[in-house]
Amino acid sequence: MKAVKLAVIYYSMTGINHQLAEWAANAGKSVGAEVRLLKVKELAPESVIEKNPAWKANTESTKDVQEAGSEDLEWADAIIFSVPTRFGNVASQMKQFIDLQGGLWAKGKLMNKVVSAMSSAQNPHGGQEATIHSLYTSMMHWGAIIVPPGYTDASIFKGGGNPYGTSVTQGQDGRMVEDVKEAVHHQAKRTVQVAQWIINGQNPE
Amino acid sequence: MKAVKLAVIYYSMTGINHQLAEWAANAGKSVGAEVRLLKVKELAPESVIEKNPAWKANTESTKDVQEAGSEDLEWADAIIFSVPTRFGNVASQMKQFIDLQGGLWAKGKLMNKVVSAMSSAQNPHGGQEATIHSLYTSMMHWGAIIVPPGYTDASIFKGGGNPYGTSVTQGQDGRMVEDVKEAVHHQAKRTVQVAQWIINGQNPE
Amino acid sequence: MKAVKLAVIYYSMTGINHQLAEWAANAGKSVGAEVRLLKVKELAPESVIEKNPAWKANTESTKDVQEAGSEDLEWADAIIFSVPTRFGNVASQMKQFIDLQGGLWAKGKLMNKVVSAMSSAQNPHGGQEATIHSLYTSMMHWGAIIVPPGYTDASIFKGGGNPYGTSVTQGQDGRMVEDVKEAVHHQAKRTVQVAQWIINGQNPE
Amino acid sequence: MKAVKLAVIYYSMTGINHQLAEWAANAGKSVGAEVRLLKVKELAPESVIEKNPAWKANTESTKDVQEAGSEDLEWADAIIFSVPTRFGNVASQMKQFIDLQGGLWAKGKLMNKVVSAMSSAQNPHGGQEATIHSLYTSMMHWGAIIVPPGYTDASIFKGGGNPYGTSVTQGQDGRMVEDVKEAVHHQAKRTVQVAQWIINGQNPE
Repeated sequence: MKAVKLAVIYYSMTGINHQLAEWAANAGKSVGAEVRLLKVKELAPESVIEKNPAWKANTESTKDVQEAGSEDLEWADAIIFSVPTRFGNVASQMKQFIDLQGGLWAKGKLMNKVVSAMSSAQNPHGGQEATIHSLYTSMMHWGAIIVPPGYTDASIFKGGGNPYGTSVTQGQDGRMVEDVKEAVHHQAKRTVQVAQWIINGQNPE
Repeated sequence: MKAVKLAVIYYSMTGINHQLAEWAANAGKSVGAEVRLLKVKELAPESVIEKNPAWKANTESTKDVQEAGSEDLEWADAIIFSVPTRFGNVASQMKQFIDLQGGLWAKGKLMNKVVSAMSSAQNPHGGQEATIHSLYTSMMHWGAIIVPPGYTDASIFKGGGNPYGTSVTQGQDGRMVEDVKEAVHHQAKRTVQVAQWIINGQNPE
Repeated sequence: MKAVKLAVIYYSMTGINHQLAEWAANAGKSVGAEVRLLKVKELAPESVIEKNPAWKANTESTKDVQEAGSEDLEWADAIIFSVPTRFGNVASQMKQFIDLQGGLWAKGKLMNKVVSAMSSAQNPHGGQEATIHSLYTSMMHWGAIIVPPGYTDASIFKGGGNPYGTSVTQGQDGRMVEDVKEAVHHQAKRTVQVAQWIINGQNPE
Repeated sequence: MKAVKLAVIYYSMTGINHQLAEWAANAGKSVGAEVRLLKVKELAPESVIEKNPAWKANTESTKDVQEAGSEDLEWADAIIFSVPTRFGNVASQMKQFIDLQGGLWAKGKLMNKVVSAMSSAQNPHGGQEATIHSLYTSMMHWGAIIVPPGYTDASIFKGGGNPYGTSVTQGQDGRMVEDVKEAVHHQAKRTVQVAQWIINGQNPE
């Protein structure tokens, strides 16, 4: 049985989506996947980041995380995205990363990736649903196999019940409001599970 | 190797989506799937249908097609939906069919279905994209594995290039404007293919 | 100054959306609108409703509410919809009501209505955003002027911060989880306000 | 009667959306609006643009168009966006422009803008609908008054019948496939018209 290659790709300003991504990466490893935890390139200038202590601290503490590239997408069997909302749509840093994959797409190298997505916002209904939908819309263009969590586990209800992907509210204090750790674990394990079925089905021993 | 069980479920007023569904059903059979071609229950009263010759003719010519029920969804490994747009969203006949599956959903019987969707409208940009998205949104609630065609085959470009699902424009004369037959064949075969991988992967011999 | 004619159109199974609609209607009256509070036609057979005490009770207590018809839409300057989610999309009862307006639409009688929408779900992220978006998509086909609340008032944050429209979670006990009354009041008043500006602007004294 | 202040904000790689924006700007002027035609900041490095003759030519021919800034949004009564799809969502250049308005948004300066949007793609169903929807979703966060064209004029049917906003297909030769000039004119005039009603209604003489 070939191990699933899982890329967990995130953008994070103050650490929430980095945390979601890390939980997903760990859950992926726990079920035998080969995992790459990857951030997308920042668009904001350093001078802006400097002025925001939480942003600065997160940028520094994650400076050793590799930046995602086309080769990671080509390598991956499964991809989990984690991205905060910006006005009900993916942050432009993530959008730029997606836009830059036109070359890979044109070569047909993005087909049949198993994809799932997570998000965060500053209000309980602040675009978490819409942001995940936007991500999946782009994935449809890539010919992805989309695996939203639905209501496939009790942890999802506990985490706020978002069937499109785990989402969390970032409180005024910068911390997560809902307890979504288990929901993230489930989502990541299910994504790897579906990818494993597909790999096994494509390559019977 | 277990055969994929494919349910092709459609609503059709004047025959377009019945045709799309039939093409999908035939393509499914051609790659070894067990197929059920099923229509959803009509909501319009007979007196209204009577007054519209095209609607009446289609109702009569498809009267022997079975009506879809919860047992068909439980049976299926893969589901292809075909539904015309009504103001940028699925026709209410299809929405009612979906709404009625709450019982099956609550029992966890709708998880992991491999799903793909098709649509039609009276204008080239008359809601084909939006309607397919609405269908997939509901499928995310069911815990489905969503398999839009993307740009995984040349036939998709020829058929109008809708990566979310095959869609067609119904002309003033009631006929299809674009030539989407091959795109439908590809979409159905790919849906069955992904379902086959998953079945094989779940049940290694 | 001509008064704004506001139609508040809802579907409600156990009373949540009836309550939202009533709050919206009252807020509309409080700012001088002429208001019609209207329910859409039920699709479920009586025998099904009978078996669900909460559904039955709500059906009985709202039996004197008028059913919405095309003439109400033609009459209205502004429309507020309130509809529970069913798998991330409007309940089929509401979808049927929308679908039936094809005749009015073809006559151009649905243009320039000022529209806003509200929703409810059983999980905090259970499709509230997606359902309101579906409604607005249909309204775009009607040529509506869409007035989502955005973050135009502090009450919106308090009610869960849904910028697309007020939404509420229905708890296990059947009651609303969030306190959205003020958010509904604001949304209704703003909808009437925008409609009033448009009426005044169209008909200078 | 105060003139409507209209900002037409676009991103264009090879000229299509610049052309749509220019048509909209001219139509706005023809009905008395004060108009600013504005492009958003490019994200691609010059070295990449240099290698693509069509991109380079468009960049040079539009080098005197002003870049949009927050002050333009604050100034405007109405905004028309024109942006190509990138994988079913707004190009990242436009997304970045939107994301950067957080400061203006927090001050409440983005409320009640009258907004409409246009798009283009390389396939007839290549994300035109989805891209315009994404833009409107962000506008809902801004508290905008959204004015999609619907089917409010015959020119819309002629241009492909996209009720969400005018959209066009870019052919292999780089040119527009559909004839959408009249549809753009109508959309821009209607947007200005609605904004004019609102201004007049807010400021009766």
